[in-house]
Amino acid sequence: MTAEEIAKMLRQVRRGTLSVEGAVERLRTLPYEDLGYAKIDHHRSLRQGFPEVIFARCMLAHRHNILVTRGDEALFERIRSLDRRAEYHRLSGAIVIRRERKIRGKGKIVVVCAGTSDIPVAEEALVTAETMGNRVQSLHDVGVAGIHRLLGESQHLRDARVIICVAGMEGALPSVVGGLVGVPVIAVPTSVGYGASFRGLAALLGMLNSCSPNVCVVNIDNGFGAGYLASVINRL
Amino acid sequence: MTAEEIAKMLRQVRRGTLSVEGAVERLRTLPYEDLGYAKIDHHRSLRQGFPEVIFARCMLAHRHNILVTRGDEALFERIRSLDRRAEYHRLSGAIVIRRERKIRGKGKIVVVCAGTSDIPVAEEALVTAETMGNRVQSLHDVGVAGIHRLLGESQHLRDARVIICVAGMEGALPSVVGGLVGVPVIAVPTSVGYGASFRGLAALLGMLNSCSPNVCVVNIDNGFGAGYLASVINRL
Amino acid sequence: MTAEEIAKMLRQVRRGTLSVEGAVERLRTLPYEDLGYAKIDHHRSLRQGFPEVIFARCMLAHRHNILVTRGDEALFERIRSLDRRAEYHRLSGAIVIRRERKIRGKGKIVVVCAGTSDIPVAEEALVTAETMGNRVQSLHDVGVAGIHRLLGESQHLRDARVIICVAGMEGALPSVVGGLVGVPVIAVPTSVGYGASFRGLAALLGMLNSCSPNVCVVNIDNGFGAGYLASVINRL
Amino acid sequence: MTAEEIAKMLRQVRRGTLSVEGAVERLRTLPYEDLGYAKIDHHRSLRQGFPEVIFARCMLAHRHNILVTRGDEALFERIRSLDRRAEYHRLSGAIVIRRERKIRGKGKIVVVCAGTSDIPVAEEALVTAETMGNRVQSLHDVGVAGIHRLLGESQHLRDARVIICVAGMEGALPSVVGGLVGVPVIAVPTSVGYGASFRGLAALLGMLNSCSPNVCVVNIDNGFGAGYLASVINRL
Amino acid sequence: MTAEEIAKMLRQVRRGTLSVEGAVERLRTLPYEDLGYAKIDHHRSLRQGFPEVIFARCMLAHRHNILVTRGDEALFERIRSLDRRAEYHRLSGAIVIRRERKIRGKGKIVVVCAGTSDIPVAEEALVTAETMGNRVQSLHDVGVAGIHRLLGESQHLRDARVIICVAGMEGALPSVVGGLVGVPVIAVPTSVGYGASFRGLAALLGMLNSCSPNVCVVNIDNGFGAGYLASVINRL
Amino acid sequence: MTAEEIAKMLRQVRRGTLSVEGAVERLRTLPYEDLGYAKIDHHRSLRQGFPEVIFARCMLAHRHNILVTRGDEALFERIRSLDRRAEYHRLSGAIVIRRERKIRGKGKIVVVCAGTSDIPVAEEALVTAETMGNRVQSLHDVGVAGIHRLLGESQHLRDARVIICVAGMEGALPSVVGGLVGVPVIAVPTSVGYGASFRGLAALLGMLNSCSPNVCVVNIDNGFGAGYLASVINRL
Amino acid sequence: MTAEEIAKMLRQVRRGTLSVEGAVERLRTLPYEDLGYAKIDHHRSLRQGFPEVIFARCMLAHRHNILVTRGDEALFERIRSLDRRAEYHRLSGAIVIRRERKIRGKGKIVVVCAGTSDIPVAEEALVTAETMGNRVQSLHDVGVAGIHRLLGESQHLRDARVIICVAGMEGALPSVVGGLVGVPVIAVPTSVGYGASFRGLAALLGMLNSCSPNVCVVNIDNGFGAGYLASVINRL
Amino acid sequence: MTAEEIAKMLRQVRRGTLSVEGAVERLRTLPYEDLGYAKIDHHRSLRQGFPEVIFARCMLAHRHNILVTRGDEALFERIRSLDRRAEYHRLSGAIVIRRERKIRGKGKIVVVCAGTSDIPVAEEALVTAETMGNRVQSLHDVGVAGIHRLLGESQHLRDARVIICVAGMEGALPSVVGGLVGVPVIAVPTSVGYGASFRGLAALLGMLNSCSPNVCVVNIDNGFGAGYLASVINRL
Repeated sequence: MTAEEIAKMLRQVRRGTLSVEGAVERLRTLPYEDLGYAKIDHHRSLRQGFPEVIFARCMLAHRHNILVTRGDEALFERIRSLDRRAEYHRLSGAIVIRRERKIRGKGKIVVVCAGTSDIPVAEEALVTAETMGNRVQSLHDVGVAGIHRLLGESQHLRDARVIICVAGMEGALPSVVGGLVGVPVIAVPTSVGYGASFRGLAALLGMLNSCSPNVCVVNIDNGFGAGYLASVINRL
Repeated sequence: MTAEEIAKMLRQVRRGTLSVEGAVERLRTLPYEDLGYAKIDHHRSLRQGFPEVIFARCMLAHRHNILVTRGDEALFERIRSLDRRAEYHRLSGAIVIRRERKIRGKGKIVVVCAGTSDIPVAEEALVTAETMGNRVQSLHDVGVAGIHRLLGESQHLRDARVIICVAGMEGALPSVVGGLVGVPVIAVPTSVGYGASFRGLAALLGMLNSCSPNVCVVNIDNGFGAGYLASVINRL
Repeated sequence: MTAEEIAKMLRQVRRGTLSVEGAVERLRTLPYEDLGYAKIDHHRSLRQGFPEVIFARCMLAHRHNILVTRGDEALFERIRSLDRRAEYHRLSGAIVIRRERKIRGKGKIVVVCAGTSDIPVAEEALVTAETMGNRVQSLHDVGVAGIHRLLGESQHLRDARVIICVAGMEGALPSVVGGLVGVPVIAVPTSVGYGASFRGLAALLGMLNSCSPNVCVVNIDNGFGAGYLASVINRL
Repeated sequence: MTAEEIAKMLRQVRRGTLSVEGAVERLRTLPYEDLGYAKIDHHRSLRQGFPEVIFARCMLAHRHNILVTRGDEALFERIRSLDRRAEYHRLSGAIVIRRERKIRGKGKIVVVCAGTSDIPVAEEALVTAETMGNRVQSLHDVGVAGIHRLLGESQHLRDARVIICVAGMEGALPSVVGGLVGVPVIAVPTSVGYGASFRGLAALLGMLNSCSPNVCVVNIDNGFGAGYLASVINRL
Repeated sequence: MTAEEIAKMLRQVRRGTLSVEGAVERLRTLPYEDLGYAKIDHHRSLRQGFPEVIFARCMLAHRHNILVTRGDEALFERIRSLDRRAEYHRLSGAIVIRRERKIRGKGKIVVVCAGTSDIPVAEEALVTAETMGNRVQSLHDVGVAGIHRLLGESQHLRDARVIICVAGMEGALPSVVGGLVGVPVIAVPTSVGYGASFRGLAALLGMLNSCSPNVCVVNIDNGFGAGYLASVINRL
Repeated sequence: MTAEEIAKMLRQVRRGTLSVEGAVERLRTLPYEDLGYAKIDHHRSLRQGFPEVIFARCMLAHRHNILVTRGDEALFERIRSLDRRAEYHRLSGAIVIRRERKIRGKGKIVVVCAGTSDIPVAEEALVTAETMGNRVQSLHDVGVAGIHRLLGESQHLRDARVIICVAGMEGALPSVVGGLVGVPVIAVPTSVGYGASFRGLAALLGMLNSCSPNVCVVNIDNGFGAGYLASVINRL
Repeated sequence: MTAEEIAKMLRQVRRGTLSVEGAVERLRTLPYEDLGYAKIDHHRSLRQGFPEVIFARCMLAHRHNILVTRGDEALFERIRSLDRRAEYHRLSGAIVIRRERKIRGKGKIVVVCAGTSDIPVAEEALVTAETMGNRVQSLHDVGVAGIHRLLGESQHLRDARVIICVAGMEGALPSVVGGLVGVPVIAVPTSVGYGASFRGLAALLGMLNSCSPNVCVVNIDNGFGAGYLASVINRL
Repeated sequence: MTAEEIAKMLRQVRRGTLSVEGAVERLRTLPYEDLGYAKIDHHRSLRQGFPEVIFARCMLAHRHNILVTRGDEALFERIRSLDRRAEYHRLSGAIVIRRERKIRGKGKIVVVCAGTSDIPVAEEALVTAETMGNRVQSLHDVGVAGIHRLLGESQHLRDARVIICVAGMEGALPSVVGGLVGVPVIAVPTSVGYGASFRGLAALLGMLNSCSPNVCVVNIDNGFGAGYLASVINRL
């Protein structure tokens, strides 16, 4: 099934000459991954073959927003040719199609990050949370080596209902932030660093051993997971 | 300062012949750890010297419940001689003094555990959450190798506002549970297992790589942290 | 010995003007790897030099099917120019020449895989088992985070005589599958994942610690080994 | 529920004055682990409290043989006081009650082990396979550093339908054995060794990288799992 | 050579009936370790045999202070029976004989530690620095989860010429302290923690990845090394 | 904000038609990292976008020297087009703009390195120390396998106030150097080596276990950190 | 077979009333390990049961010297009761019966060790080499932090035909020694150290990365292996 | 100093218009590495700049053979343009200039390797040993999974005075070979494999735990070191 056939099929669905059920049936024989709202598989060899198929499925199956993580410019162009609403977030590679902008989360999700190198992962978390219907705010460049700068932002921290803390290297930020607030802190270690950071292992272990008991951890560089979980908590 | 002196001092505080401030001042010169509600340092060499000091401090400083984790029978006896309300949870070693039983959490916290060997950590999480004012429920022995038994309990899972998943060995339970519910799942790896479990590393890595995006992770055997965080989320 | 000389020699063997023994003798002085049916060494520097030599040896030495794993398009083209029956399996890179299609296995081998990213390894296992004379079936996209989808396929699992379970990330699938059936389950961890998956280590450890005792494990990404072992068991 | 109460209850069941269902119901409220035939949880703190409970459940629930792994003399004495048929295998700590001796496996399972230090794990595998109804044979002390001794036993290897290979240190035995036979080889790494054996990690990695493709691996020291899986294969 | 013979020999040296050179010669045939000022080997099997020998050597060879690290009560009693000036620091196990109290360091060395469990290592650093002739000060219980408490002590930090930072768990303290001062910060990871602290590995990696560039690191639990190095720097 | 706009803005600042404050304000909205003197973030994706911005900020914010680490030829060309004083150190990739050459350190900093492959890291340390106002000297190619060559340079070692020791592979150099001098030795493990060097882990562990107690360690390949810390010590 | 029966049987063999073959036959049914000259299995659970059996076998099977490694006082007493020539080397636990003292090695084997804590492993190597018929010499306490002391012994190093280098902590000694001589250097890492020595891993990695190409490595604490290999080389 | 200048200088040395000492002096200011016979530094960034310098130094300083390891075609061409005797060994990248062919080793060195993928490392060992003046022989493709093939070559093994065993994956070959001979066996783990081979770690650990006590180990892929050490032993 070529890109042209898919595009044609989608137009039929839009015109109503093909039912959604019929279209879904046609697409069914190919592998896909169904993560609810969001994240589309970025396995390279598969994606390069079938982006339109996956995209078509998402468009048909969901009425809501679509999020593709860790895409690149080329993938973005192909997706935008299918839907002009697509936006590209360059640092994280997130591609988003926002069909609705209803706020579903009860409070604000604040994404804090330690250094400029951590921004791509923080952006992935931010875009995920926003796409899932939350008010979000980001605080950049508030690493623990300049503690007064972090304290200067503490009002913003206290305004949050959920906090996402993104940090590489020694991963110390969540412990400090966790001690300043009474809300859940989701720590995201990043693979930023070199040498004994061992691609994020140092930050991961640091966060798992945090002395602040309101801290939990997700996988290294998993901005998507942090944004998703923050959104789940914020809807409670 | 001996145990007798401390007991005497505490009696003075109760009679009102010594102010709380004065007592706190006397206790101030010794090392301690202040984790808010809860967890008292269990460093063995220190604890054996100063249990009464730490306990006395807690009693004076807080009006609320007290939780000591990973204690033993001997410590429990010493604490109970200071306050008869102390209860001992044998499997986890948790010692609790409940002064108030007000429910502060908005929903129910469900603690699920995979095998009987994981029960001590699950109990620590349960007791922590309960001590912090939550309605709690536990589901034991619902490992993934007998999936129908877990599914048979799925109504209980759907009743939860926050779920704590305790599992050793391959640590697969949180992924399955995370896929069955729409609430946050806090995964606690345990050091249960042998050989290639590497004291909980296998379960920890499994949970960090969970394919369910509503899962986050705390340290190996950290039942206290899971119960604490669940409580923070449940109060939102 | 150039590719042309090899082709010429092979034609002589076919015409009968050169004995198989004589041809084998000529090829003997170069390094090779003899894995019986199947897997031809893919060491890059060697392969680029001698693909025809290796291939010629296989053709002469065996009457049965030939399997080259982890090849690429270029290698496939060179092999097909020597034998038109060669087929290429793009996702796994397997190249197969099936000379006979006799079924030797007594039952069916079912290959289950957790996510779309695991498909290349699953395909390698499937193609290996099929090339060795087994009836095979594949179940894709039945990860543990959507447990009902897996249960929906449980009839297929019960039809199997041997099951191969391919999963990356937390590697939880074999434990669940192992609990549903009474036959051997061969678990194949994949290097799919990022961060704390540590290139398949998380899945490997998870599978080694499986709480289902009918599960055994092969090397990370070793679809070939799983298919081979399943075939050995299925012939018992 | 004390040991005396349990013994009394069991006697009632035997006399018929208490139904099995009724007895099971009474035992239901305590944690247990149901691994089918076999392995009873050996979590120390639990076991010391409830051995009779677990044992009573097993006796009621199953008609077949019972296997307790990694027990000690004291546990054995308590179990034997409940059932005189109990046997104790000192090296592995296995405790068995054989109620039936029917052979269910189609061929012979041979357990090979490299050095005398590996014997406890080999014995666990052997006893497990035997308890599950298989003809078994053991070959001790046939490490790869004395290869002629192993080759001297090769007739026994060729008589096997399934082979279990137990080895610590470098874990090389399964590769050699796998090359000598055409049947499945289940490799069990042991924690025997010191220094760079890292408690069995060296043997585990060696076995996972075996160049014999009919080899699969179970957890370090997991004689039970190897015996169980061999039995499953031998019944096919 | 028994303890009595050694004591006798030492008395001869004091009386002048045996030259220091002669005594040293007699002691020469036994193994020892010469670390200049300080640290006496604590290899258990050796120490239990020869404490008096080692001690006698130190007394003869050095005019200055003697420090034994990681001793216990029994060793302390044996040493005090040889020299009444010996002092025992219970938490760290340090045993000191101070023969001179001259201050050699130019500024103050401040030892900061994160939690009460880190105090033994901090004490070892403090005692080492003090024994080597430095003014010292300790700040306990100033972990990063209660950042305001640390900031409340920042005047003390600014008074230091060298800072030693002792922390287990996530090891975040040195990064924060390093950002507050302009002097060298020697970070000492401790093995305090459990689970994913992996006996101090988490703290060690965190400190090596510190984002404050005035931080350096010594071995896990190496309070002696930190105190020694701080002393070397403070004499510059 | 394009490179042209930045260049224009900088020219305005130089002419005085734009205040420094005004320029800083304009630049404020973009992410940056403020490490005092020196090190500019080398995160690739960011740097490629904004080198001029970062550089402009540095020029405005500091009156002193500027150091960019791990740059490449292309970055150097872009920076030199903004300031002709820029110098490029090819082996380490360090780019320096020295505006002042005042000596601030009290003694000499000697940078010793074991093999030629370690020179890039040694150069980074040297350039950092020099840029921060220290007299420096380097000793190359004095590995421990040719110990007499190192001893031949021992006069230079004794002239140092602080020593930086750079070594990959087994990382033994700091122990030997530490035994020859009485000043602080900052050890820098490098990722030079292969196989069991595990990208510098072997050298890192070796240095952390140094038997010379005047040795401390920084991260693998962290020449910048070593030079910075040496400079901090040398100013005491 | 009890100890008395064994002793009786041995006496029969000595008197000639039982042939060696007959005695060996009787002993054959029990597990044992045959490492030629030397090392008797020290698996605790087995040894405690059968020391006499193993010993009896060795006495019958070999005419030469017997070496038991890592024994303890109790084992020594039992062995000495069987043969009065037995000697006990307390630090390493080696038990030796020397029946012949013929020198078989062509040159001298020198065992160098870095610190006093490494002496037990060095002694095991020394005793092994001596028992196998070599002239041996030991150099203690020549660690690299006091390089002049090592150089002071260099004449002894140059007299050696094979050198064994025993070192824990950073394991730097073999690199230095390897650079001073032209003969093979066998490096033995020891588990001496703490913290980041990770039970000898640091020394092991350091030695594997030695920059002296005449260095090879054996397992951590493997004094026996080093002495055995040195002996094999010395007989060439 | 450009390549032309170097070539000119070398011609002057050959004509005698420039003394060797004078030429060495001119070359002295650049970094180099002096490993005696053999191995020239292959640090990429340095080598690309200065191959002629290094080469010129070697030619002047030594009268003997020159070995460059891990070179590539381009480097070979540049070296051959300086000396036509240069030979290139393609699989290992070794470049050799043999000026003398005198045999210095007393016996034969046999290089055994397990699979075809290990050949590049085996070739490096072989070429090194040959360049250093030894008679050598290689046995390829004798992995332990086809043990009879190895045994078929055992006469060649018995002819050796020193054996080098090269193996990746499980690294079992040295244990088997070590049991067949009475001479030293130098084991070289290779990074051949995938998944749980962890770039040679599995083979390295396997070899360190070898149950044959005449086996020692060098670094992963260190064919050079094995050949060098074998040569040192063979000259004894």
